[in-house]
Amino acid sequence: MEETFVPFEGIKNDLRGRLMCYKQDWTGGFRAGLRILAPTTYIFFASAIPVISFGEQLERNTDGVLTAVQTLASTSVCGIIHSILGGQPLLILGVAEPTVIMYTFMFNFAKERPDLGRNLFLAWSGWVCVWTALLLFLMSILGACSIINRFTRIAGELFGLLIAMLFMQQAIKGLVDEFRIPQRENPKSIEFIPSWRFANGMFALVLSFGLLFTALRSRKARSWRYGSGWIRSLLADYGVPLMVLVWTGVSYIPAGNVPHGIPRRLFSPNPWSPGAYENWTVVKDMIHVPIFYIIGAFIPATMIAVLYYFDHSVASQLSQQKEFNLRKPSSYHYDLLLLGFLTLMCGLIGIPPSNGVIPQSPMHTKSLATLKHQLLRNRLVSTARKSIGKNASLGQLYGNMQEAYHQMQTPLVYQDPSAGVPGLKELKDSTIQAATSMGSIDAPVDETIFDVEKEIDDLLPVEVKEQRLSNLLQSTMVGACVAAMPFLKKIPTSVLWGYFAFMAIESLPGNQFWERILLLFTAPSRRFKVLEDYHAAFVETVPFKTIATFTIFQTVYLLICFGLTWVPIAGVMFPMMIMLLIPVRQYFLPRFFKGAHLQELDAAAYEEQPALPYNLAAQSEFGGGASGIGEGEILDDVITRSRGEFRHTSSPKITSSTPTPNKDLIMHQSPSLSFNSRMGEVTTEYSPRSGARGPYSPKSREMKQSTLGKSPLNPESKQQERH
Amino acid sequence: MEETFVPFEGIKNDLRGRLMCYKQDWTGGFRAGLRILAPTTYIFFASAIPVISFGEQLERNTDGVLTAVQTLASTSVCGIIHSILGGQPLLILGVAEPTVIMYTFMFNFAKERPDLGRNLFLAWSGWVCVWTALLLFLMSILGACSIINRFTRIAGELFGLLIAMLFMQQAIKGLVDEFRIPQRENPKSIEFIPSWRFANGMFALVLSFGLLFTALRSRKARSWRYGSGWIRSLLADYGVPLMVLVWTGVSYIPAGNVPHGIPRRLFSPNPWSPGAYENWTVVKDMIHVPIFYIIGAFIPATMIAVLYYFDHSVASQLSQQKEFNLRKPSSYHYDLLLLGFLTLMCGLIGIPPSNGVIPQSPMHTKSLATLKHQLLRNRLVSTARKSIGKNASLGQLYGNMQEAYHQMQTPLVYQDPSAGVPGLKELKDSTIQAATSMGSIDAPVDETIFDVEKEIDDLLPVEVKEQRLSNLLQSTMVGACVAAMPFLKKIPTSVLWGYFAFMAIESLPGNQFWERILLLFTAPSRRFKVLEDYHAAFVETVPFKTIATFTIFQTVYLLICFGLTWVPIAGVMFPMMIMLLIPVRQYFLPRFFKGAHLQELDAAAYEEQPALPYNLAAQSEFGGGASGIGEGEILDDVITRSRGEFRHTSSPKITSSTPTPNKDLIMHQSPSLSFNSRMGEVTTEYSPRSGARGPYSPKSREMKQSTLGKSPLNPESKQQERH
Repeated sequence: MEETFVPFEGIKNDLRGRLMCYKQDWTGGFRAGLRILAPTTYIFFASAIPVISFGEQLERNTDGVLTAVQTLASTSVCGIIHSILGGQPLLILGVAEPTVIMYTFMFNFAKERPDLGRNLFLAWSGWVCVWTALLLFLMSILGACSIINRFTRIAGELFGLLIAMLFMQQAIKGLVDEFRIPQRENPKSIEFIPSWRFANGMFALVLSFGLLFTALRSRKARSWRYGSGWIRSLLADYGVPLMVLVWTGVSYIPAGNVPHGIPRRLFSPNPWSPGAYENWTVVKDMIHVPIFYIIGAFIPATMIAVLYYFDHSVASQLSQQKEFNLRKPSSYHYDLLLLGFLTLMCGLIGIPPSNGVIPQSPMHTKSLATLKHQLLRNRLVSTARKSIGKNASLGQLYGNMQEAYHQMQTPLVYQDPSAGVPGLKELKDSTIQAATSMGSIDAPVDETIFDVEKEIDDLLPVEVKEQRLSNLLQSTMVGACVAAMPFLKKIPTSVLWGYFAFMAIESLPGNQFWERILLLFTAPSRRFKVLEDYHAAFVETVPFKTIATFTIFQTVYLLICFGLTWVPIAGVMFPMMIMLLIPVRQYFLPRFFKGAHLQELDAAAYEEQPALPYNLAAQSEFGGGASGIGEGEILDDVITRSRGEFRHTSSPKITSSTPTPNKDLIMHQSPSLSFNSRMGEVTTEYSPRSGARGPYSPKSREMKQSTLGKSPLNPESKQQERH
Repeated sequence: MEETFVPFEGIKNDLRGRLMCYKQDWTGGFRAGLRILAPTTYIFFASAIPVISFGEQLERNTDGVLTAVQTLASTSVCGIIHSILGGQPLLILGVAEPTVIMYTFMFNFAKERPDLGRNLFLAWSGWVCVWTALLLFLMSILGACSIINRFTRIAGELFGLLIAMLFMQQAIKGLVDEFRIPQRENPKSIEFIPSWRFANGMFALVLSFGLLFTALRSRKARSWRYGSGWIRSLLADYGVPLMVLVWTGVSYIPAGNVPHGIPRRLFSPNPWSPGAYENWTVVKDMIHVPIFYIIGAFIPATMIAVLYYFDHSVASQLSQQKEFNLRKPSSYHYDLLLLGFLTLMCGLIGIPPSNGVIPQSPMHTKSLATLKHQLLRNRLVSTARKSIGKNASLGQLYGNMQEAYHQMQTPLVYQDPSAGVPGLKELKDSTIQAATSMGSIDAPVDETIFDVEKEIDDLLPVEVKEQRLSNLLQSTMVGACVAAMPFLKKIPTSVLWGYFAFMAIESLPGNQFWERILLLFTAPSRRFKVLEDYHAAFVETVPFKTIATFTIFQTVYLLICFGLTWVPIAGVMFPMMIMLLIPVRQYFLPRFFKGAHLQELDAAAYEEQPALPYNLAAQSEFGGGASGIGEGEILDDVITRSRGEFRHTSSPKITSSTPTPNKDLIMHQSPSLSFNSRMGEVTTEYSPRSGARGPYSPKSREMKQSTLGKSPLNPESKQQERH
C-alpha cells in the first residue's frame, strides 16, 4: 500500500481488491461445511461475553438508559452489515471498552445540563455520532489509512498487550467486587450479610479459576494423549463454550442451600421488558437538542473519531499479520468509510456504535488458520492414501499431492500469474533425496517409507480460511443473544471474570513484545531453550542487551499508557499515546538503536506485506464430512504456541547452509549450534524425521530466512506488492 | 537372597551386610553437607502431616485417650531408633492408617467390656503389642522375609496404588466434611450457621486446590525457564513445605472479617496440657488386665503381626527397587526383628506402634537419588572445568572425570572386587569417536566441543545417597513437632487435604501399574508418544492385548481390595488379599499369560536384585558449598517423570544395533522406527547431541537392554548376587 493522499484513491483500491474475491468469500465459507462452526462458536463467545459485561457496566453508568440489550444489538447489527458489505471479513466488530468510557463521560456531562438531561442524552449522543461519522468519511476519503504501515509491530503489540491488561484488570476487579455489596442491590438482602458475602466471594474464586483453568486446558486438547481423536478435536474446538456451560452448571449445585442471589449472575433487562425499546426512536428527539450542544458535540466526536480510526485500523492490521500468509488484500480505507456509516446508523437509532475489536479480531484469524489447516490436511492425507493404494511411486505421489494442493488454493485473477506456484517443493526434494539413498524414486511407496499423516503435518504452510461466513454467523448469534437473554442471565458473573482472564491470556502467545518480556525473565542458562523452540529471528541476530533495553523502554511506555487509562477523562485518549509511538519510532528510537536491530525487533517496520500469489486453476475444497482423525498438536502450535512469527512448516528437512553465526549471539548457544559453529556452517544431515519437531532442529534458520522476507514458500514474493 | 528357613540365618546375613557399611552410612550423610536438608524436609512433611491427621482421627475414635501427641511421639521415637539401629535406613517408620483402624476396633471392643473399659484399654493394647512383638520375633527368626522376592511388582505396585487411593479418598472426604458440622464441635457456634459453613467449605476448596496446584508445580521448578538457578533449585527442594506455609498465610488474610473457626484448623491438645502424659505409665496397669483378656489379646495380635510383616517388608522393598541401583544390601529379617522390639516398647509406654510406611519410604529414596545426582554432577562439572582450564586433551579429561567419579563411589570391601569398576565408559567411547572424526584425540578440548554441563547430565547413572542422617533428622523433626504443636495448629485442615491429594499424586509416577492404566486410555494414534518418552520394556515387547488383559485383571483386583477397606472390621485384613496375590501370580496367572510376557509385565519376578559393585578406592564427596547452577530438568525426570524403570542415562550416544523388532509390536511405531525397521536394524548415527533428549532417540532400546538385566553400567552385575 502506497502512502497516497489522493482523495478516494484508497477506497477505490480497496474496493477493486475485495470485489475480485467477493464471490469466493462466500463460496469458500460454504465449502468448509460444518467445520466452520468451530471458529464461529469460539469467536461468538469471545465477542458476546465482553459485550454483555460492557452493557452491564453501561447500565450502571447511565442509570439504565443503555443496557446489554443495546450493546448486543449494536454488535450484532454492525457485525452483520460488516460481514456482508465490509472489506476485510476477518475483522470482528463490537462495542468496546473505550466506547463505554466515552458514553459514560457524555452521560455525566448531559445529565447535569438542564436543557439536555437524561431524556435528551441519547439524542445528543446521536449528534456526536453524526459528527464522528463525518470525520470518519473525511479521513477515509483523504487516505488517512495509508499511513497504517507506520503503525509498526511496536505500536500494534503494545496496544494488544494493553488490551490484555485491561481485560485482566477487569477480571481481578470483578472478583474483588464479588466480596462486596453491589451498588445496584438492596444491601439489606440476606445474601449481603457478611457470611454470605464471604461465601459468595469464595464461590466466585472457585468458579472463575475453575473456568480459567479448564478453558486453557481444553484449548490444548488436540495434543492430549488420552481419549479418542474426535473427543479431543471436539474439546479443542468447542471446549471454551462447553466450559462456560459446565461451570454454570456447577454454580447450581449448591442451589438448595444458599440464598437466591448466590452466586451472583449476569444482570440485564429482557428485551421485551417495558422501556427496553424507547431508544429506537431517538431520531425524533434529535431536533429538540439546542443548537449550541449540536455544535459542541463536535468536541467528543473528534475524540471518538481518532479513537475509532486507530482501533479499527489496528484491529484490522493485527488480524492480517504477515505471519498468517493471507492471500486476499486488505481494505483499510473502505472499512473506515463503512464504519462511518455504521456509526451514523447507531447514533440515529440510539445505540452505542461498534468498531473493530482486539483481541477478538486476531483470535478470529488464528482460529481460521486452524480450520484451513484441518481442511488442507484431510484433503492431502486422502490423496496420499489413494496414491499409495494405487502403488504409485514417490514421484507420482508428490505429483498428485501437488495437484491436490493447488486445487485447494484460492483462485484470483488479480494476482501476478508469473509468480509461480507455491507448494510442496522443498519436501519433495528432501524426501526424494532420502528415497534415492534407499533405492529408486520410481519404486512404489508404502506407508513405511511415507508416513502420510506426519509428512503432511510437516508439509503444510500456515494459511487462513478467508471467508465471510464465520463473521456473519457469529454476528447473527450475538443478535440471537438478545432473545436468549433469560438463558444468558443464568451465567454467574464469576464465570465471566474467569472468561475475561482467559481472553487476556489467550491473546498473549504470538505477541513478540510479550515474548521479549518473558525472555528478560528467562535465566541465562535457560536461554538455549528459547532457541530450541520456534522463535523469532531477533533472538539470534540482536544482542541480548539491545533486546533488553528495547523491551524495557516499551514496557515503561506500556505502563504509562496503562496509567493513563486510570485518569478520569483524559484516559479515553490513551490511543493518542500509542499514535505518538509513530514519531517516536521514526525519529527517536533510531538514535539509540542500530537500524538493523530495530528492523529485526520491529519486524513489520516500513515493509510491505507481500501478498502470496494465487493459483489460477479451478478450486474445490473438501469439508464437512472430513474426519478428525489424528489431528496433531501441530494445530495447537498454530493456535497457542506460535511465537511471533508463524511457523513455516513447509520445509523442515532442507539442508540449510548459513554463514557463521553472528559473533555477538546473545545467549549460551545450544550445544549443537556451538559445536557446529566451529565448522563454519550448520549442516544438518538428512535423517528420517529426526529434525522434524525435535529440539536443535534447523527450524530457527528457516524462521530467520522467512522473516527476512524470503518466504521458503515463494522466494519471489518479495518483488510483488499490493497496490 | 535365598529362600532359607534356617533359624537366625536371615538375621545373621542382614547384620553382616549392614555392619560392613554402617560407618559409611554416617560419614556419607555428613559429607553431603547442608544439601541433606532438602530430602530431610521433604520427607519430614510427608511423614508428619499424615501422622498428625491420623492422630486427630484416633482422638475422635478413642474419646481422647490417644491423640496426635502420641502418634507423633511414636513416629519420632521409632524413627530415631530405626535410623540408628535399623538395617535399611531408607525405610521410613510412622503410625499408619491400618494401625489407626486396628486401635479403633480394639477401643470399641474394650470400652464395652466392664472389666476393661476406657481405663484399661491402653493396658490391654499393651498386651496386644506384647503378643505382636513375639510373633514378629518368631517370623524374623524363622526367615519369613526370605519369601519377599515372591512379592513381585504386581503385589507391590497394587499396594502402592491402593495406598494412593486411600490418601485421595481421605482428601475428598476431608473436603466434603468441611461443608458439614464436625462431630466434636458445638453445633450452635456462629461458624456452623449455614452461611458460614458454606463459606468455610468454599474457602477450603480454594486452599486445598491452591496447595495441590502450587505444590505440584514447585516440584518441577528445576525445569522452569524463568528465575535464576538457585531460586528454582530452592523451590524444587523446599517448595512443598513453603507452599504449606504460604497457604497457611493465605488462610489468615480474611481473619478480620470471619469468625474464629473459619477456616477450620488442626486440632490437638498441647503436650503440656493436663492428662497428655497419663498413658506413659501404662505398664503399671498391665497387671490389672484379667488373664482371659491377656490371652484373648493374641487374636488382634496375629492380625497386627501379619499386617506389620507385610507393610514393613513391602515398604522396605519399594524403597529398594531395582531401578534405584542401590549399592548397599537389604535387611528384611533384622528390620522385622527390630520392629518387634519397637512394637513392644510402644505397647509398654501406651502409644500406638509405628511401622514402615508407603509412599513415604519410596519418596525418601527418590529424593536421595536427586541429592546424589546433584552431588555427583557438581563434582564432575568442576573436574571437567579444571581439566579444560589446564588444556587437557579429551583423553585426559575423561581420565580425570573417571577418577573423580570413582572417588565418589561408596567403598565397601564386602563386594566382589573382580566385578570391575562401573563408570563413564560408553560416553568416553562415543565422544572419542566424535573427536576422532574432527581431529586428534590428543588435541586440547574446549567447551565448544565438550559442553560440560550437558555431557555430565547425560553421563550420570541413577544412584542413591544411601545414608542414615536424613532419616535420623526427619524423625527428630517429627519429635520436635510435639513441642511445636501450637504452631502446627495454625495449619488449616483444608491445606492438609490438599497435601493428602499431593502425596497420592506424587506416588504415581514410576508405578508401572499406573502407567499401564494410562496406556489403556491412550488413544491408539497417540501410543507412539509413549515410545518417544522413557518407557518400560514391556511396552515394546508385549502385545497390547496382553497388556490390556493383565492390567484389567490387576485393576479389578485393586478395586476388590479397595472395597474391602470399607468393610468395618474385616477391612483391616486387606493385606491378606494382597498376599493372596503370591499364589495367584505363581499358579493362576501363568495359565492365562505367556511366561515371557509375565516376566516383562512383572519385571521383578523371582529375580535377584543384583547389587552393583563397589569401588575400593578412597572416597571423598563434595557437598554443602556446591552451587546449584544449571541443574537441568534431568533432576525432574528422576523425581517425577521416571516411568517404572529408572533412566539409565549413562550411554545415550551408543551406536546400538538390535535385531528386527518383534513382529507383534503393540503400537503404531513411531515413524523413525518404522522407517528403520525395514532396514533390519536401528542404526543411529552420531550427531552432536541431537539424540540426547529429543524424541525418537535410541533411548527405548537402551531401556530395554537395561531392564533385561544387562545394565549398561556393568554387564557383569548379573553374575553377582547378594547373599
